[in-house]
Amino acid sequence: MQSVEELLGRARAAQRRLALAPAETRSAALRALASTLAASTASVLAANAADLAEADGLSAAMRDRLTLTPGRVAAMVKACEALAAAEDPLAEERPLGQRPNGLRVSKRRIPLGTLAVIYEARPNVTVEAAALAIRSGNAIVLRGGREALGSNVALGRVVRAALVAAGLDPDAVVVIEDTDRQRVVELLGATGKVDLVIPRGGPKLMALVDAHARVPVIRHGAGVCHVYLDRAALVARAVAITVNAKAHRPGVCNAAETLLVHRALLPEGLVAVARALVDAGVTLRVDPAAGEALRAAGVPTAPAVDSDWDTEYLDLVMAVRVVDGLDDALAHIAAHGTEHSASIVTEDRDAAERFIASVDASCVLHNASTRFNDGGELGLGAEIGISTSRMHAYGPMGVRELTTEKFVVRGDGQVRS
Amino acid sequence: MQSVEELLGRARAAQRRLALAPAETRSAALRALASTLAASTASVLAANAADLAEADGLSAAMRDRLTLTPGRVAAMVKACEALAAAEDPLAEERPLGQRPNGLRVSKRRIPLGTLAVIYEARPNVTVEAAALAIRSGNAIVLRGGREALGSNVALGRVVRAALVAAGLDPDAVVVIEDTDRQRVVELLGATGKVDLVIPRGGPKLMALVDAHARVPVIRHGAGVCHVYLDRAALVARAVAITVNAKAHRPGVCNAAETLLVHRALLPEGLVAVARALVDAGVTLRVDPAAGEALRAAGVPTAPAVDSDWDTEYLDLVMAVRVVDGLDDALAHIAAHGTEHSASIVTEDRDAAERFIASVDASCVLHNASTRFNDGGELGLGAEIGISTSRMHAYGPMGVRELTTEKFVVRGDGQVRS
Repeated sequence: MQSVEELLGRARAAQRRLALAPAETRSAALRALASTLAASTASVLAANAADLAEADGLSAAMRDRLTLTPGRVAAMVKACEALAAAEDPLAEERPLGQRPNGLRVSKRRIPLGTLAVIYEARPNVTVEAAALAIRSGNAIVLRGGREALGSNVALGRVVRAALVAAGLDPDAVVVIEDTDRQRVVELLGATGKVDLVIPRGGPKLMALVDAHARVPVIRHGAGVCHVYLDRAALVARAVAITVNAKAHRPGVCNAAETLLVHRALLPEGLVAVARALVDAGVTLRVDPAAGEALRAAGVPTAPAVDSDWDTEYLDLVMAVRVVDGLDDALAHIAAHGTEHSASIVTEDRDAAERFIASVDASCVLHNASTRFNDGGELGLGAEIGISTSRMHAYGPMGVRELTTEKFVVRGDGQVRS
Repeated sequence: MQSVEELLGRARAAQRRLALAPAETRSAALRALASTLAASTASVLAANAADLAEADGLSAAMRDRLTLTPGRVAAMVKACEALAAAEDPLAEERPLGQRPNGLRVSKRRIPLGTLAVIYEARPNVTVEAAALAIRSGNAIVLRGGREALGSNVALGRVVRAALVAAGLDPDAVVVIEDTDRQRVVELLGATGKVDLVIPRGGPKLMALVDAHARVPVIRHGAGVCHVYLDRAALVARAVAITVNAKAHRPGVCNAAETLLVHRALLPEGLVAVARALVDAGVTLRVDPAAGEALRAAGVPTAPAVDSDWDTEYLDLVMAVRVVDGLDDALAHIAAHGTEHSASIVTEDRDAAERFIASVDASCVLHNASTRFNDGGELGLGAEIGISTSRMHAYGPMGVRELTTEKFVVRGDGQVRS
């Protein structure tokens, strides 16, 4: 059996792919889930019957919740079909308007990341929660109760088969088969690996969760921010944006730390940018390809070591790496970025949109300095910080991000039937 | 010195009053803060000079952040004035549309509750964070670094004086004067008393926070849900809604547990509702006033004990209490509700709107059964649960509540000046 940590690592990688999959692929997975589940009704009911046969000392209500019937399986199938046809939440981009300097600011909806649901008895939660996660591009870790383990494992297999059928990575949905309470404690402690825990259950389960939970934290994390100069970058823009992102105020979190340069910009483009940085007082720590081009042009450099790619210098120092293209740049940012800010400089609209869609950072910029990831600059007014936690606030938090919403329902005597 | 727990208890009570204060009162507090701060510049700078004189071994950058100047104080004053004039986030009510059964559903913006900000050096955060909290109706606990303690205490006094000047409770803003690291650990562990922790600081502070933080939890908490029958309730509606809320499916979290009845409805209105409940199989646990009226009418009851008001029966049992009016009902719900669902039955539009504005619950209903606090019924589609945590999701969580947003910025070469 794999450790929770291993499962979470694979779930995170699978989530990145799920989040970037087209809406139609996630819909296809949900349709496959509906049809596979319908076709598996007999085996799922058999697993459930075995759970029921082994269940001792359950209250009548718990027993009822644990019980699957053909009707309840059909209801799960219907829920998956409804989600397959539902609007894609990740399609939403909400314009916040244009700033006086011409920047166009918007917010794009993204998944939270990896969810963990902790629940009891009701095996239908396994399918419904997994389907919600697939629709919303989240990985999900399902930790049900011991009494429902056989049912949950059977349903988990169905969900994972549906993901595979749609060409997605099945590790985005994990059924934890170890029902030791210690696994719940581990999930609650897996900060950075799990983004949100959703417990659903009776007083005993809630007491366990409450004993090990802490107040939610929205981190104002470090910024290892990136500027990527694409093949189609205008050199003058690349110079201005890179120098501003690095040297305007090097001690703050939205200052850039790493410059990624498309190989096609070598040597002239790279040399122009590097020279401007050096003129602004910046020390360059460069990979071999950049070092060779810059030495030939007489620009002073120092060699980068591995730790440079993960360092928030907060100083007039910049790491420089040559990449083979957009994919290479995206892979570098995914590996070394701190989900803070990243900017692409390019005249290629398609490359820019792919960068915007792919980079997981609180603020993704096109042809603008990373220094604009700031509440005042983005039009929020005063900010309490820049969230690097993927909670309701990601990026600058203004007064609105310190609030939530309650539901208000106005009727004229309606009752539920 | 008071314990953190005492401070948090008083902050919670002060927050409730702050959240219900009119926008103009919160604006007045922010204007008072601006003017008091401007008038206190000399004493604030003196406290800051004392901090600087005592500060040993600070880096030049830390020392710079710790330093207040007349210009930096003026910037804080300006930030407070801007927030005083800013739009009130709590004025927002966002319609989600009408359901096929005629229910009108909306979401109203509310504060998160009590925020804790943990930070270092920069004393201007004390004022800026407090001002953001006042604008958004949150209580705030400020735990700055030892090096800035004198400055923070002086600024905290200014903020609290401004709250008093506006007729607000100063306990909504708390400066923790004890700089022991253990206080940070206590804040992170104060689940139910602190709603969100926002740490801002260097690697050492973040490591301390990370060591004690856990994954954020959105609780799917118990529902001690209330139905309040107002003086202006139509009896037929009161009967239908109460019976539905209690008896339609008593084992679920949005079933009502406590019935609050305006004294003006005694005896006839109360008797009609109680008789219908008894006919539906419900056992009534009643306060003395309700008991007297119902005994006289021959309706069977049992006396309620104190614990009844806090019990989620999940069964055909209902606690019944007579109240002297809307304020009495609101106080009962604030003391005993679990922030899940509450419904008012009344033909008095003003009373309904006051109830909607005042009750802190994930779903507040007017002339409708509490059973409608459900993702499907409110139009969200499938739900993963009903949040009773005041995070980005409060109430039913659909697919959208499993997402967040990132900022996207499109420019044409902008740099920050």
